[in-house]
Amino acid sequence: MSETVIKFGILGCAEIARKVGRAIGLAPNATIVAVGSRSAEKAAKYAADNGFPPATRAYGSYDAVLDDPEVDAVYVPLPTSLHAKWAVLAAQKKKHLLLEKPVAVNAAEFDKIVEACVANGVQFMDGTMWMHHPRTAKMKEFVSDERAFGKITAMHTCFTFAADPDFLENDIRVKPDLDGLGALGDAGWYCIRSILWANDYELPKTVTALRGPVLNKAGVILSCGASLYWEEGKVATFHCSFVSHLTMDITAVGTKGTLHVHDFVIPFQESEASFSVASESGFDELVTGWVPKPAEHLVNTSLPQEVLMVKEFSSLVGAIKAKGSQPEMKWPIISKKTQLVIDAVKLSIERGFEPVEVVG
Amino acid sequence: MSETVIKFGILGCAEIARKVGRAIGLAPNATIVAVGSRSAEKAAKYAADNGFPPATRAYGSYDAVLDDPEVDAVYVPLPTSLHAKWAVLAAQKKKHLLLEKPVAVNAAEFDKIVEACVANGVQFMDGTMWMHHPRTAKMKEFVSDERAFGKITAMHTCFTFAADPDFLENDIRVKPDLDGLGALGDAGWYCIRSILWANDYELPKTVTALRGPVLNKAGVILSCGASLYWEEGKVATFHCSFVSHLTMDITAVGTKGTLHVHDFVIPFQESEASFSVASESGFDELVTGWVPKPAEHLVNTSLPQEVLMVKEFSSLVGAIKAKGSQPEMKWPIISKKTQLVIDAVKLSIERGFEPVEVVG
Repeated sequence: MSETVIKFGILGCAEIARKVGRAIGLAPNATIVAVGSRSAEKAAKYAADNGFPPATRAYGSYDAVLDDPEVDAVYVPLPTSLHAKWAVLAAQKKKHLLLEKPVAVNAAEFDKIVEACVANGVQFMDGTMWMHHPRTAKMKEFVSDERAFGKITAMHTCFTFAADPDFLENDIRVKPDLDGLGALGDAGWYCIRSILWANDYELPKTVTALRGPVLNKAGVILSCGASLYWEEGKVATFHCSFVSHLTMDITAVGTKGTLHVHDFVIPFQESEASFSVASESGFDELVTGWVPKPAEHLVNTSLPQEVLMVKEFSSLVGAIKAKGSQPEMKWPIISKKTQLVIDAVKLSIERGFEPVEVVG
Repeated sequence: MSETVIKFGILGCAEIARKVGRAIGLAPNATIVAVGSRSAEKAAKYAADNGFPPATRAYGSYDAVLDDPEVDAVYVPLPTSLHAKWAVLAAQKKKHLLLEKPVAVNAAEFDKIVEACVANGVQFMDGTMWMHHPRTAKMKEFVSDERAFGKITAMHTCFTFAADPDFLENDIRVKPDLDGLGALGDAGWYCIRSILWANDYELPKTVTALRGPVLNKAGVILSCGASLYWEEGKVATFHCSFVSHLTMDITAVGTKGTLHVHDFVIPFQESEASFSVASESGFDELVTGWVPKPAEHLVNTSLPQEVLMVKEFSSLVGAIKAKGSQPEMKWPIISKKTQLVIDAVKLSIERGFEPVEVVG
C-alpha cells in the first residue's frame, strides 16, 4: 500500500533549504511542488540550481505558496523574526508546518504559532534534524536504561563553530532584527534540546547564564553558556558559539554510566554515526587502568537524518490527511520547552547572570 | 653515568601510597627506604604486602621517618588537614617533598608549606600524575599551536566517579576534619589543574560556583561545578563528583581547533593513551558531514605516568643534591594556582554562587 505523498512548498531561498529541499526529494513520502521568494525569478533559479522537480512552481511571494491549493505542507526557513507572521498564516491556510529553529523570538510568540496549528488541525514540527537519526534512538535507549546508565546526574553539551568574517558581518544570525537570538538561538538551540532530550524533557528549575558571553556591536549573542539546575543535584551546562572551532558534544553522566558523542547535530558522515558508552566502569586494583573500558557503538542509516525528519513529518501529515488523525503534539511541546530555556538564558544574561526560574 | 638514586620515606599507609610506592620502585632513580605509620607493625605489614624493598625501615611514627638521615625525600599522602604540619616539618628536616593533592586546606596554608620548602632549599611537587604522561606534552603541543588550535576560547572538564557506600561513609575524603574539600579537592583538583594547564596557568578573573552542589550531612562537597571567566569571552566550566559514574574529560576549544580526551587523569590503560584533535574542520557543501574529520593520536609510554612523576621529581632532587641546583619553582607555583581556584569555588558556594575574584 503506497503512502500518501506530501506536497511541500518552501518559503524563501535560504541556504539551509537546499539541504532540506534535497531531503524532501529523497523522502519516499514527500515531494516539492512550490517555492516562493520575494522574486519569482530568484525562486525559479533556486529551484533549478538545487534540482527541485521540473514542475515546481516558482512564486514571487510567500503568500502565493500558501494560496497554492496543492501545497499540503510548508517548510519555513525564514529569519526567526518572521516566523510568527508566516507560520500563523500558513496554519490558517491549513498548511502543515515544518519550521526552522529557533521556532520563534520567544515562547510567547511561539504559543501563537501553536495555537494557530491546533485551531487549524495542522501538524507542527521544528527542523531539529538530529532528533530523527537512528543513533539518537539508540543513545536514548542507553540513557533510559536504569541498569546500565542509572539516573542522569550531570550533563554538558557544546556546539560551536567558527563563522567566517562574512557570516559575522552579514548572516541573518548576527542581525538583531532577523535572528536576534544569535548563537543562542542557533547553536544553543541544539545544546538545550539535547539536555532536555536526555532528561525526558523535564524542564530545569533554574537557568543561570555563565559569565563571559560575547555579543556583537548590535547586542546579538556570538557565544554564551548556561548552567541548568533541577533538584537533588541534577545539573547541566552548555556552551554555544559562532567564534570557536567546530565542536558538537554531548556528555551525559548517570549514576552508573556515561554517554559521549562528538557529532550529535551533524554526524561526521551521512551513512554511519557512532557514540561511546561506559557502564559501571571502575579502576583496576592499583588504579592504573579502567575496567571495563568504554565501548564504541556504530549506527548505520540508509537515509540521512534530515530525510528521516521529512519522512516522519510527512507520515504524520499523511495520517491526518488520510485517516483524520490528530496532530502529534509531542513536537510542538518539545519545541516550546526548548524555547523556554532559550528565553531563560537570554533573560539571565540581561539580568547580569542571575538565576531565572523556568516555568513550563 | 649513573644518576643519583633518591631515597624515599613514605608517611602513612594510604591506599594511594601503594600505587606511588610501586612507582618509586619502578623509577630508575628512586627507591623506598622507610615507611612510617602510627604503629611500626602496621608499617612493616604494609611494606611487606606491597613489595617494598626488604631493607625498608618500618617506623611507628612519621617523625621517625623525618629523622632518618638516609631519607632524601618524603611522599606525603596524609589527609589534607595534616599537610601543613607534616609538610612543613619535612621541609625543616631538609626532606624534599612529594605531596598528595589537594596540597592544603587552603592557599594560605599552602603558602606556609612553600615558604618552608624555599627556606630549606627542598624541592616541592604535588602528586598530579597525569601532568607527567607523555600524552600530556603532546596535547599541550596541540593547544599551543597557533596555526592548528588558534587561541583557546572555551573549555570543559569533568571528573566524576561513583564512590561505593563504604567510601561515602568512611573515606577521609568525606570527613570535614580530614579532607574537608571533598570532591572539589579530590576530583575537582584535576579539573581545575587541566583548565589552568590549557590556559598556560593564567588564573581566571572570576570563578562562579554552579547551582546544585551536593553536600553530605557534615557539609563536605560530594559534587559541584563552577564556571571560570578570564576576559574577552574566554571561559571554562568543570564538574566533579563522587556520586556519578566514572568520567574523565577534557574538551578544549580554540578558534581553530578542538581537543578531546576521555581519560586524562588515569588513562584507560598504562602503556598507551590517546586523544583526539580536529583542526579547521568545517562542513561539506550541503552540511551533511565534516571536512576534515577529527583525528585520533596514540601515545605510547614505556613507564606509567606515576613512575614518570617520581622520576622527574627525583631528577630535580638529584640535581639539587649533586650539583647544588635550585629547586624548580614551576611545581609549587602551579600547585598554588590550582589551590587558589579551589578556594574560590568553595567561597563562591558559601556565598550563594556569587562570583569570586581570583587574585594570584
